[in-house]
Amino acid sequence: MKRILSIAIILVLLACKNERTEKQVVKEVQEEEEVVKAERNLKPDGTPYSDKELDGMSHDESMMVLYEAPKDTIQTIGILLYDGFFTMDAMGPLSVLNSMYPTEKRLIGRKRGTITSSDKVKIEVDYGIDDIEQLDMLVIPGGFVETYQATKDEELLAWIRKIDKKSKYTVSVCTGAWILGAAGVLDGKEATTHWYRAEENLAKYGATFVKKRYTNDGKYWTSAGVSAGIDMSLALVDQILGRNYAEFIALNLEYDPQPPFESGHPDKADRVVSVMMEKMFDEGLKPYKDKE
Amino acid sequence: MKRILSIAIILVLLACKNERTEKQVVKEVQEEEEVVKAERNLKPDGTPYSDKELDGMSHDESMMVLYEAPKDTIQTIGILLYDGFFTMDAMGPLSVLNSMYPTEKRLIGRKRGTITSSDKVKIEVDYGIDDIEQLDMLVIPGGFVETYQATKDEELLAWIRKIDKKSKYTVSVCTGAWILGAAGVLDGKEATTHWYRAEENLAKYGATFVKKRYTNDGKYWTSAGVSAGIDMSLALVDQILGRNYAEFIALNLEYDPQPPFESGHPDKADRVVSVMMEKMFDEGLKPYKDKE
Repeated sequence: MKRILSIAIILVLLACKNERTEKQVVKEVQEEEEVVKAERNLKPDGTPYSDKELDGMSHDESMMVLYEAPKDTIQTIGILLYDGFFTMDAMGPLSVLNSMYPTEKRLIGRKRGTITSSDKVKIEVDYGIDDIEQLDMLVIPGGFVETYQATKDEELLAWIRKIDKKSKYTVSVCTGAWILGAAGVLDGKEATTHWYRAEENLAKYGATFVKKRYTNDGKYWTSAGVSAGIDMSLALVDQILGRNYAEFIALNLEYDPQPPFESGHPDKADRVVSVMMEKMFDEGLKPYKDKE
Repeated sequence: MKRILSIAIILVLLACKNERTEKQVVKEVQEEEEVVKAERNLKPDGTPYSDKELDGMSHDESMMVLYEAPKDTIQTIGILLYDGFFTMDAMGPLSVLNSMYPTEKRLIGRKRGTITSSDKVKIEVDYGIDDIEQLDMLVIPGGFVETYQATKDEELLAWIRKIDKKSKYTVSVCTGAWILGAAGVLDGKEATTHWYRAEENLAKYGATFVKKRYTNDGKYWTSAGVSAGIDMSLALVDQILGRNYAEFIALNLEYDPQPPFESGHPDKADRVVSVMMEKMFDEGLKPYKDKE
């Protein structure tokens, strides 16, 4: 009896292990998501639109189905650009936030004129920080050496404090959090930043590092390194304009990431690669820290 | 007896279901990946470096461990910019490819001067297509109406054919494949593009749509919409400079995407959102197609 039971249990366990593959779990998660989706954008009688009904709609009619009242109104978004900013830190969020309405988007240079990114992209900006008195949302991208230098730029930090006083959202991407920290607005707050010495780089400004892709502490939204700004921006649109609008943007950007290999975080990357990079960053900042 | 067996099986199945959660599957996949990783970047005796050994290395020493001979040499990469290109289509790949060595990267405008993206980013370019005779890698970003117009721009298409003759890689992101198609270089090839009427938009140029995030048919690399250019560019670096270098870039960009919701492909998005967008795109192109 015991033996039969043991064999049965082993057989079932084996079947179980084979049956419940990764694909299946993914499928189950997708099915759960479909249940959530099925509860949105229904006909007035609570049933989903048929394919035929959807195909028969005009664009305007389908927009009417999707309309949700915005939860907040953002009149102006300003993205700060400074020489040496990481291109994707600013352009990832811009590509998402640019679809927000009724919102004016401004690229704001440290000074008006041409700003050159770390990737040597030369961007003409119509505004310098002196031209801007108020923004509903301020976004600060990161970079490396120049970002560190910006943490000592008292004129810039004073401008950030001024804008932050009246902003609805104060946001950083990647090491942009170093600048927000230096401006003093993250003191006592939870935040995230690029993985490089993240805890230490936030602690010196009184902020507590949370190991998340993005996080918010009240109106202060911060993201992990570079590409995390895309995830955060979609979450911001989701919060402000609702899921339908955020889905529209994600679909437009075909934001269905499938990295060819998993190496975007030290927890996943080869250990030698991570250690090499930490040393590279340490060496890169050393001349600037030595001068202090 | 049968009853006891049935109960046992049900209990085990339940335990099984609870035990093998999504997190666990992810963990198992990660563990498998770690086995693969553990086979790279080892000491000459075939064992992994200890934390102490890694920490004791200089940056240069860790670079020596990681060094792999490049599989190919790319001297020049040119990214074509034209008014209305999607910012992320060009800036995503640039943020990845910019770290390639020993490679000169050029932003090439339809004409030299200022190019304005669909997101109203004004980029100064030092080269127009007339200034460029040869490139090892040509990258064509997508856009919408202006991309469609580019498929009729005979001067541009002739330049693409000229560059393609000697290129090692001819690459498109998103609807950039429409332009490559119109230039005639995708005829008889497998390719991918933005999901919007993807099959139809490639078929008219003799290309076969493959439903992938990115694909290559010989030297022709094409990606799905906008953000897919990031995945493709990492795969390109992996192929050309090896996994260590590609991992270094992914880690620098903290490319560990965690979309706040799954909506980056019509297979995943709410059906009403997808249908609305297809109608929006149809309406957007109609005036241009009607004129033909």
